[in-house]
Amino acid sequence: MKQTSELLYQEYRHMLMDNILPFWLRYGLDRVHGGMYTALDRDGSLLDTDKSVWFQGRALWTFATAYRQVEQNKEYKMVCDSLVSFIEQNCFDPADGRMYFRVAKDGKPVIKRLRYVFSETFTILGFAAYSRAFNRPDYAQKAYDLLLKVEHYLLTPGLLVPKFDTPSLGFGLPMILLNTVQELRAALPEKAEEFTTRIDGYLEQIKTYFIRPELQIVVEQCNPDGSLQLDHFEGRQLNPGHAIEGAWFILNEARYRKNDPELMNLGTTMLDWMWNKGWDSEHGGIIYFRDALNKSATEYWHDMKFWWPQCEAAIANLMAYSMTGNDGYLQQFDTVHQYIKGHFLDYEFGEWYGYLHRDGTLSTPLKGNMYKGPFHIPRMYLVCCQLLDELRR
Amino acid sequence: MKQTSELLYQEYRHMLMDNILPFWLRYGLDRVHGGMYTALDRDGSLLDTDKSVWFQGRALWTFATAYRQVEQNKEYKMVCDSLVSFIEQNCFDPADGRMYFRVAKDGKPVIKRLRYVFSETFTILGFAAYSRAFNRPDYAQKAYDLLLKVEHYLLTPGLLVPKFDTPSLGFGLPMILLNTVQELRAALPEKAEEFTTRIDGYLEQIKTYFIRPELQIVVEQCNPDGSLQLDHFEGRQLNPGHAIEGAWFILNEARYRKNDPELMNLGTTMLDWMWNKGWDSEHGGIIYFRDALNKSATEYWHDMKFWWPQCEAAIANLMAYSMTGNDGYLQQFDTVHQYIKGHFLDYEFGEWYGYLHRDGTLSTPLKGNMYKGPFHIPRMYLVCCQLLDELRR
Repeated sequence: MKQTSELLYQEYRHMLMDNILPFWLRYGLDRVHGGMYTALDRDGSLLDTDKSVWFQGRALWTFATAYRQVEQNKEYKMVCDSLVSFIEQNCFDPADGRMYFRVAKDGKPVIKRLRYVFSETFTILGFAAYSRAFNRPDYAQKAYDLLLKVEHYLLTPGLLVPKFDTPSLGFGLPMILLNTVQELRAALPEKAEEFTTRIDGYLEQIKTYFIRPELQIVVEQCNPDGSLQLDHFEGRQLNPGHAIEGAWFILNEARYRKNDPELMNLGTTMLDWMWNKGWDSEHGGIIYFRDALNKSATEYWHDMKFWWPQCEAAIANLMAYSMTGNDGYLQQFDTVHQYIKGHFLDYEFGEWYGYLHRDGTLSTPLKGNMYKGPFHIPRMYLVCCQLLDELRR
Repeated sequence: MKQTSELLYQEYRHMLMDNILPFWLRYGLDRVHGGMYTALDRDGSLLDTDKSVWFQGRALWTFATAYRQVEQNKEYKMVCDSLVSFIEQNCFDPADGRMYFRVAKDGKPVIKRLRYVFSETFTILGFAAYSRAFNRPDYAQKAYDLLLKVEHYLLTPGLLVPKFDTPSLGFGLPMILLNTVQELRAALPEKAEEFTTRIDGYLEQIKTYFIRPELQIVVEQCNPDGSLQLDHFEGRQLNPGHAIEGAWFILNEARYRKNDPELMNLGTTMLDWMWNKGWDSEHGGIIYFRDALNKSATEYWHDMKFWWPQCEAAIANLMAYSMTGNDGYLQQFDTVHQYIKGHFLDYEFGEWYGYLHRDGTLSTPLKGNMYKGPFHIPRMYLVCCQLLDELRR
């Protein structure tokens, strides 16, 4: 395994540094107004001049983490500075301090969503990574202040507009907050204890509401009393890639806590169940949605293969292998790894495709839009490089 | 053609009366709480107990129109009475008079959307048809009052929450209002002139903003000054089924105006352009989206074959043939007709599938959800029966 890890480490580092990051540097970075375009066609040409606020924060996380973890490349620093300044100048609504969802190339607001806090959480992720990479404690503080704002929005009735009049709990919120606060804890170690207490709370929510041993699933949504919404599409909808992403956030927390056995067990159980549900044994790849009771899907893209669930499955399996030594995870990692290389990589123009039909044929050849940009893919290479670096030693 | 029309008329009447309407009567009608479920699996079993408010109004239009036009069936009347009472008791928010988007089986509110008026316009459609079918002028008046409310929402800044901070004009609004007011005019003939003046306004908007001879397309969205948004996904997105639906609303208006040549020309031009863009010459079927400049799509279901664009293409081609006598339209009608019979009909459990992959394979076998129910399909059979009835004489 040492030799394989060495080779894979080299391959993943090369993909990150010579393929993925240069693609976004060359085609995504807006050298006129600052910030990052993500709506790029197969060859990198611009498809939409609007900018995703999520991706200003996410790209900041990516380039700052690559700078800190892999190479202190001046261009990465230049991208980070551009993103930070674009975010601070354009992505907050001065009227109420809330963040936009989409802005024009010059920063003018286009869409603000009052239902979610993800523009904020991805900015926290970016600011925390920026602080660590460039030794800027002021940005760890800004990230912390933004977390307090997010908590205020979440806890104050009326500030977020709920989608449903009948209240529901969603897995996405504690799962994203878990990762957000993990990143913030690394940037503000003096407050580690406070952050770990928060994380204990998110873990408790996840265990109480979304881990369902009776069906061996991780659900995405349930009633506030914990009962399942099995007579509704949303209540039965499984998102295996999303649950597997949550699984490795939890495994990562176990790593932080010196391989805490309970958390290791929780993370690997979530991975086992949702790999079982999500891997398409007929065509390969993690499928987008499954129904908890195997009923007919209503979302018509349910059977597609998106890029990001494959990224999350690769990370989760490699992490589970590195922690348990269980060869099954290594085999599953290799299965995803081969599927990605066989279906998602664009060997002509670089980067990955994002959207395949169930059978692996291409649906659209674009490289980015408001939901695909420099995040899941470079994060997969970054996290796997870290794991492979440990495994090769 | 007379003989073919006779046979087709019999086939379409049979499909409507012995297949489609009985499916919804048997599985959709809620005999406990009233109103109509639409989230039905392939075999009619219930997938979600929530009810779509759009579909309470749309189903009312369908069953009332079938009663008036095809057969004075007591069961249809019973469905209509149930829908009217469910709508009036449960679908309006008593706080502000606005309609919900989704309610629970017993009528409790689930989702209210502040961005759109389509719950209202489909209720107008239903009330108008109910008034005509059962000689209830009070429901024509209620439909009219609701239209005035819709106009108030649309004209009063701040009442509807816009999706984009940067204002845009959408084809969907004048196009749906055109059809809504046509139906209301038939129910309230004493106000015909007033409604025709409104329709002239919608037609003017459509011609001014959405008919674009420079690219031979009907666009879905543009800037308020009429310029195209060619550097945005939304501005380039073509929805051929939607534009073809608008085309036959306009042809229908030409019929009302004694085959007005300008409107006939407008409707057939829209049909010609968008058939050209939308028909998939490789796999058959009207595709969901195209890009005005043939750039890569961002909506990952762009290349699927949905049921309703096929319905709209069948109606528009048959109507264009009946008005122009041009055999090309008859051939196109027959092409869609054969594609539907070969791909959408479920010969085992009845009704149609809704969602196919581009190559015609099934994506999900369900018969209904919050967006598919008893509307486009029975409307196709109803409108085509009317046209075929004229052609067979």
